[in-house]
Amino acid sequence: MSDASLLEAFPTPVDSPFVVEHIAEEFTSLCPRTGHPDFGVVKIRFCPRPGSKGGSCVELKSLKLYLQSFRDEGIFYEAVTNRIRDDLAALMNPVWMHVTTNWRSRGGIRSRITANHGDVPTT
Amino acid sequence: MSDASLLEAFPTPVDSPFVVEHIAEEFTSLCPRTGHPDFGVVKIRFCPRPGSKGGSCVELKSLKLYLQSFRDEGIFYEAVTNRIRDDLAALMNPVWMHVTTNWRSRGGIRSRITANHGDVPTT
Amino acid sequence: MSDASLLEAFPTPVDSPFVVEHIAEEFTSLCPRTGHPDFGVVKIRFCPRPGSKGGSCVELKSLKLYLQSFRDEGIFYEAVTNRIRDDLAALMNPVWMHVTTNWRSRGGIRSRITANHGDVPTT
Amino acid sequence: MSDASLLEAFPTPVDSPFVVEHIAEEFTSLCPRTGHPDFGVVKIRFCPRPGSKGGSCVELKSLKLYLQSFRDEGIFYEAVTNRIRDDLAALMNPVWMHVTTNWRSRGGIRSRITANHGDVPTT
Amino acid sequence: MSDASLLEAFPTPVDSPFVVEHIAEEFTSLCPRTGHPDFGVVKIRFCPRPGSKGGSCVELKSLKLYLQSFRDEGIFYEAVTNRIRDDLAALMNPVWMHVTTNWRSRGGIRSRITANHGDVPTT
Amino acid sequence: MSDASLLEAFPTPVDSPFVVEHIAEEFTSLCPRTGHPDFGVVKIRFCPRPGSKGGSCVELKSLKLYLQSFRDEGIFYEAVTNRIRDDLAALMNPVWMHVTTNWRSRGGIRSRITANHGDVPTT
Amino acid sequence: MSDASLLEAFPTPVDSPFVVEHIAEEFTSLCPRTGHPDFGVVKIRFCPRPGSKGGSCVELKSLKLYLQSFRDEGIFYEAVTNRIRDDLAALMNPVWMHVTTNWRSRGGIRSRITANHGDVPTT
Amino acid sequence: MSDASLLEAFPTPVDSPFVVEHIAEEFTSLCPRTGHPDFGVVKIRFCPRPGSKGGSCVELKSLKLYLQSFRDEGIFYEAVTNRIRDDLAALMNPVWMHVTTNWRSRGGIRSRITANHGDVPTT
Amino acid sequence: MSDASLLEAFPTPVDSPFVVEHIAEEFTSLCPRTGHPDFGVVKIRFCPRPGSKGGSCVELKSLKLYLQSFRDEGIFYEAVTNRIRDDLAALMNPVWMHVTTNWRSRGGIRSRITANHGDVPTT
Amino acid sequence: MSDASLLEAFPTPVDSPFVVEHIAEEFTSLCPRTGHPDFGVVKIRFCPRPGSKGGSCVELKSLKLYLQSFRDEGIFYEAVTNRIRDDLAALMNPVWMHVTTNWRSRGGIRSRITANHGDVPTT
Repeated sequence: MSDASLLEAFPTPVDSPFVVEHIAEEFTSLCPRTGHPDFGVVKIRFCPRPGSKGGSCVELKSLKLYLQSFRDEGIFYEAVTNRIRDDLAALMNPVWMHVTTNWRSRGGIRSRITANHGDVPTT
Repeated sequence: MSDASLLEAFPTPVDSPFVVEHIAEEFTSLCPRTGHPDFGVVKIRFCPRPGSKGGSCVELKSLKLYLQSFRDEGIFYEAVTNRIRDDLAALMNPVWMHVTTNWRSRGGIRSRITANHGDVPTT
Repeated sequence: MSDASLLEAFPTPVDSPFVVEHIAEEFTSLCPRTGHPDFGVVKIRFCPRPGSKGGSCVELKSLKLYLQSFRDEGIFYEAVTNRIRDDLAALMNPVWMHVTTNWRSRGGIRSRITANHGDVPTT
Repeated sequence: MSDASLLEAFPTPVDSPFVVEHIAEEFTSLCPRTGHPDFGVVKIRFCPRPGSKGGSCVELKSLKLYLQSFRDEGIFYEAVTNRIRDDLAALMNPVWMHVTTNWRSRGGIRSRITANHGDVPTT
Repeated sequence: MSDASLLEAFPTPVDSPFVVEHIAEEFTSLCPRTGHPDFGVVKIRFCPRPGSKGGSCVELKSLKLYLQSFRDEGIFYEAVTNRIRDDLAALMNPVWMHVTTNWRSRGGIRSRITANHGDVPTT
Repeated sequence: MSDASLLEAFPTPVDSPFVVEHIAEEFTSLCPRTGHPDFGVVKIRFCPRPGSKGGSCVELKSLKLYLQSFRDEGIFYEAVTNRIRDDLAALMNPVWMHVTTNWRSRGGIRSRITANHGDVPTT
Repeated sequence: MSDASLLEAFPTPVDSPFVVEHIAEEFTSLCPRTGHPDFGVVKIRFCPRPGSKGGSCVELKSLKLYLQSFRDEGIFYEAVTNRIRDDLAALMNPVWMHVTTNWRSRGGIRSRITANHGDVPTT
Repeated sequence: MSDASLLEAFPTPVDSPFVVEHIAEEFTSLCPRTGHPDFGVVKIRFCPRPGSKGGSCVELKSLKLYLQSFRDEGIFYEAVTNRIRDDLAALMNPVWMHVTTNWRSRGGIRSRITANHGDVPTT
Repeated sequence: MSDASLLEAFPTPVDSPFVVEHIAEEFTSLCPRTGHPDFGVVKIRFCPRPGSKGGSCVELKSLKLYLQSFRDEGIFYEAVTNRIRDDLAALMNPVWMHVTTNWRSRGGIRSRITANHGDVPTT
Repeated sequence: MSDASLLEAFPTPVDSPFVVEHIAEEFTSLCPRTGHPDFGVVKIRFCPRPGSKGGSCVELKSLKLYLQSFRDEGIFYEAVTNRIRDDLAALMNPVWMHVTTNWRSRGGIRSRITANHGDVPTT
């Protein structure tokens, strides 16, 4: 089962606003219906809260371990996306966050799910 | 004939807003004039209504079967696009939906049809 | 000479707004100065007026024949683009239309001309 | 059912050897197990026998109709490839022929089948 | 642990020689040192022995299940490649077979392992 | 030295607004410090003033000769970009103009300079 | 009608063997059945006979005019390819020559025709 | 250690506003945890303050040397990005500046950090 | 200075011949003339000697550390390539080995050096 | 005029055979007929004679200056290619050398010239 306790954060190093994007290209979980593996790319983009206001950023290696913890879990695309958004929002309380999962084709159909936290600027 | 009764939906699993995109790369129907096959890519993007408000999402396998049901139907590009939009809007009643069909070249001309439901945000 | 009488239209099949794009990748005309052939790609995008308001859409095969009628005409890039816009706007009276011509390199310079009709939304 | 009687040939127009390649990017048939559609690209390359020796080439439109005749047939990848090779070899009796089918991913696996007739040169 | 008993074969349908290639783009196993997941693409190309000589071809769905059985196994790149070659050669006894594994970057280094069975023609 | 007197213009052929883009992919000048050649791509996009208001468009061949006149000139990236903008604005007095120069890598750094005239719409 | 008299040659400038390739990306002719335009890319590769042995090379501008002379001719793919090969072989008498025509898709099928003169080395 | 004293600026050559973008594709620093090298691409985009108001632009060669001065420094992605933004803002006092660092994959995760100075327009 | 003592090998796990390719995309060393950093991609392909004959393969992590040991060394392209070939040949005594270094552009010129050990098959 | 005296060589550093390739992507010369600039990419690949036999390699910076010396010379494609081959062969006396020039499109035709020295292996 995916394990949010694996996530660690470090205090935002500066107060001037900046944006972080992590793209995990080797995500895999299981289809809850068939038990067959699903493969996707997870993109996480967020604006951390300033350090002086207690803001923090997810630590990269802990993010890798957290994403690996989905490997044996049967879970739908929508649930993966919303859970990552919720777990990371709870960890960091960012100004805003944008999570996208991009799944490899099943039966000729590719899917992409997007979940936001806060007021994500259109780029 | 295309068959909307093949479509199934499941309740939106969360209340926080998110966006779903399905890209079916193996769509085929027939030209109503010549009877020759047409080939295209169908993109469906929508924001489901929250689960607490009775919102639902189209189930992926049923979507595949529904799209396959166009295989023997003679139908114009515009009609395919509008019918998919109407059938899925009737099924899910989403906050908004955006359907695009991208057709392979005929006589040196490629065509793309886009139909919206509700207030689609410009990305 | 290009011949707008080749163009045919059919009534817009639905009233809900949608967008049509045709991309003709095999356009050729003649340079009015040198008589040498020019080659380009013509993109036509429009929002047809609803069927209930007398709106219509250009028929695809007639569009092909119309575009082929430029084959022996000596005409500047700007004139091609504006004439296509004018001929199609006269035929369909669309809500808006956007015509782009993309010309292959001459003397190391590629050119692209864009002409609008009505209020084209920025995408 | 696929129908080789749709194929037509015309006498090889010259005696000097040349090579013809046709790439049909819109091939579809049915999986004989599941009944679901398969999609692939069919490449046919051959060296026609010289016209003075009774050689002939497949006519392009008849090839299109022949390939479309697989649309409703349940047939394995290997059988499609071998049948096209056999039908075209019977029609044209070419010096050599090379048929490749390239199938879109099923369950995360893409397949490609190649069948030769005669002595195909390595390119 | 990877399980060769999942593999099934069917008799080669024809006697004329042909070549089969399967490309599995969603392969994953575990690093035997770190326990972290590895991700790669597995390409299998072979010339089946003719049906009249008892030749057979691997069945596609069984191949998928067999490759999935590596998911929880700690195994080196070289061992994966050689085992797939050995298991499939034992199953099919092909005229020749060529197996390539293409691994995603670790520490800035991508790796590719190739193992042959029999006399693989250079293409 | 670059020579703006090479530029010629012709009256804008229509009054309906349109946009012209010229992309010169073979631009070269000299570095004023080292004397070594620089290579870049020059993009010029503008909205000509209507013909009825005395508007004009740069003639394509004269543009080619003008850009070639930089070949032996030692000039910085910023100066090239601003001078082209100024020379063409003086020639045509367009509604707006956008000039971009894209320079090949020097010491591992690629540069791109953009200069506007008037109110350039964001596309 | 295509006109070989437009072709001009110049004496091969050196005696050491070399290879010339011209790629004409803007070729168009007419389909002899339908009268509709065909579009393709013509590649011509040859090894000129040494200058001291009376060898010659086709002049580039004359090649352009010769290829343009097919613009109004109804002619099959095979005939275009063989005629270009014959006309250029008659002009230059090269050591070897290789002509390939690559045609844009018609009815979902792309075609490529190759004709050789002399002993073309495999590259 | 990175050394901002290597940076040099020259007065903005014109008063009309323009935009400069430098893309350094060969950036490397060290991971402060493991000591292993990190590799990335640094993009710097800014609008210089006009020359008449004391504005200046970073000199390209000094920028190269400055970026090279990170080669032996152990520093996090976020710190690299913010320090470059701060050092260049202090040097040039631009109207606005946008710095992006794009890091090669570590453990299957690619990262991108963006830091702004002033009011960066959305393009 | 580059340090071959960092390299470790493990016994070739099987006796059937196979081929290994490692592609290190993050190589950097210093130019011995200017002291400026060079960046390149190192490809190493080899056929290990069978395990029963004392053959061995380079261990992947040790290869990473070995390649990193060039980071502070001033060394020419040719010397890098030949030294890697020599160090790895001494370590593994492979049946054959092929080393290629692909360097990023300097002064508009990209370079690629290839060094072989033993009888490398042309693929 | 191009100036071979700019070329410098250094003794081949090792005796084991290796191959060097330099790709100059910023070559320009003048068309001898029209005086207009030509732009191309020059690829030079050679196997240097061993150092112990007096072999040498062209020095990279001198190669850059030599290629720049064509900038103001009116010269045909064939002559550029053969001259570079002759000048470098005279300088280095390599085991074999292969020179290719790849020219940007003129009048819709791209050209590529190849000249060999010695016995160039097919790759």
